[in-house]
Amino acid sequence: MKKRPLILVTNDDGITAPGIRNLIEVMQEIGEVIVVAPDKPQSATGHSITINNTLYLNEISGKNDAVKEISCSGTPVDCVKLAVSEILKQKPDLCVSGINHGSNSSINVIYSGTMSAAVEAGIEGIPAIGFSLLDFDWNADFSPSKKFIKKIALEVLSNGLPEGVVLNVNIPKLSENEIKGIKICRQAKAVWQEKFDKRKTPQGRNYYWLTGEFVNLDKGNDTDEWALENGYISIVPVHFDLTAHHAMQQLNTWNLNEKN
Amino acid sequence: MKKRPLILVTNDDGITAPGIRNLIEVMQEIGEVIVVAPDKPQSATGHSITINNTLYLNEISGKNDAVKEISCSGTPVDCVKLAVSEILKQKPDLCVSGINHGSNSSINVIYSGTMSAAVEAGIEGIPAIGFSLLDFDWNADFSPSKKFIKKIALEVLSNGLPEGVVLNVNIPKLSENEIKGIKICRQAKAVWQEKFDKRKTPQGRNYYWLTGEFVNLDKGNDTDEWALENGYISIVPVHFDLTAHHAMQQLNTWNLNEKN
Repeated sequence: MKKRPLILVTNDDGITAPGIRNLIEVMQEIGEVIVVAPDKPQSATGHSITINNTLYLNEISGKNDAVKEISCSGTPVDCVKLAVSEILKQKPDLCVSGINHGSNSSINVIYSGTMSAAVEAGIEGIPAIGFSLLDFDWNADFSPSKKFIKKIALEVLSNGLPEGVVLNVNIPKLSENEIKGIKICRQAKAVWQEKFDKRKTPQGRNYYWLTGEFVNLDKGNDTDEWALENGYISIVPVHFDLTAHHAMQQLNTWNLNEKN
Repeated sequence: MKKRPLILVTNDDGITAPGIRNLIEVMQEIGEVIVVAPDKPQSATGHSITINNTLYLNEISGKNDAVKEISCSGTPVDCVKLAVSEILKQKPDLCVSGINHGSNSSINVIYSGTMSAAVEAGIEGIPAIGFSLLDFDWNADFSPSKKFIKKIALEVLSNGLPEGVVLNVNIPKLSENEIKGIKICRQAKAVWQEKFDKRKTPQGRNYYWLTGEFVNLDKGNDTDEWALENGYISIVPVHFDLTAHHAMQQLNTWNLNEKN
């Protein structure tokens, strides 16, 4: 009998979030699961790591629980680093992050703690997927996602991923029957137009809340935004070589090394 | 007479860091400078933004100071968002971030608050450059960097940057005469091999410090690591479309939409 794969589960909404609870359930159908996730919400922490502070781990599962669960005082990326370096005895076969409460499509991938955890696993050579549901509600219905998440995870385990590639999976807020299928997409060119909500403290000092409006500038029908708006689950293959190779030739025409 | 360009200066080491003080000096030779930078060190915060907490701004310059300086309670990315949305009356002609105390070459770009601030400016359509000196010392000697920083900033102001491209500039710890020149490079494939330093609190509880060893796996002579090791300043053009376009064809061969 083939050995069951070892699966590391993490997220950015914190270890008690319903999203990760649903992800753990799906992964238990596939392999041996270990959970290392933040002990508090860490949304929008991007690829933040803790270098000027201490890190704590707490085992929160009992000895007889089917799944070992460890909460971590750090960021999602810290969780992956600690899991690989201090907790796991072998490199996991798969790392899954999520299910995020809310979209991580298009430019959101940059801010996302969920995706940064998956990217960190990718940097460490572990096949990795971030899953997000387009529903920010804490009590979102994750059940329609489960069949698709299982399918995608099994495909990754069976096919592997190209070196240096991580999957960004976003799932529309639809019933299982309404979901039309799964599409491989590129990241849409979209932005957040900031609108800071300026308020005053009881003492009269100004402060700000960051809010904004999401604007999709991309009319292409091969983007993640198009897929999601049209009832599909989007998969964007993401990499962490940020080099804009297409710009190098132009920059090489500059007079950077002229003496003056 | 041509109007002097408006330059937004930020960093991740905090508004009092010697690195940003040096960068402000260089930028004052070029244009009108406004500084919006974190009120405390924010190294390795990546593309973190503050969504679950309030943000404060404090003007720390006097009315007659040549440069308006505002400290911000948030992350480097928050600084750029607040500057553009709440502080500046017009979009700046250039955003510069740094000078970081320490390298942001190769994979460090992912963790770097310095570079994330520049990338955020790029997302908002502002030509942007992150500058880093390969010296972590608070009292590092930034003077040899200044001539080169001015040259690169002037080239960007004069040529513009390709859409969606931001520059990641790293400067070796050398005297001005030892610096051989400036090279356009790709991001080296390098990783951090984590080594957590496990300690005990006075009460006997385990905690960890994140440390690690930087390992360059890339033997290419067109990388930022090669340039820096050989006495050159490296410029990597960076973009924020994370799509691994080269992987899409392979993923499209998967059986993701098969009924089973």
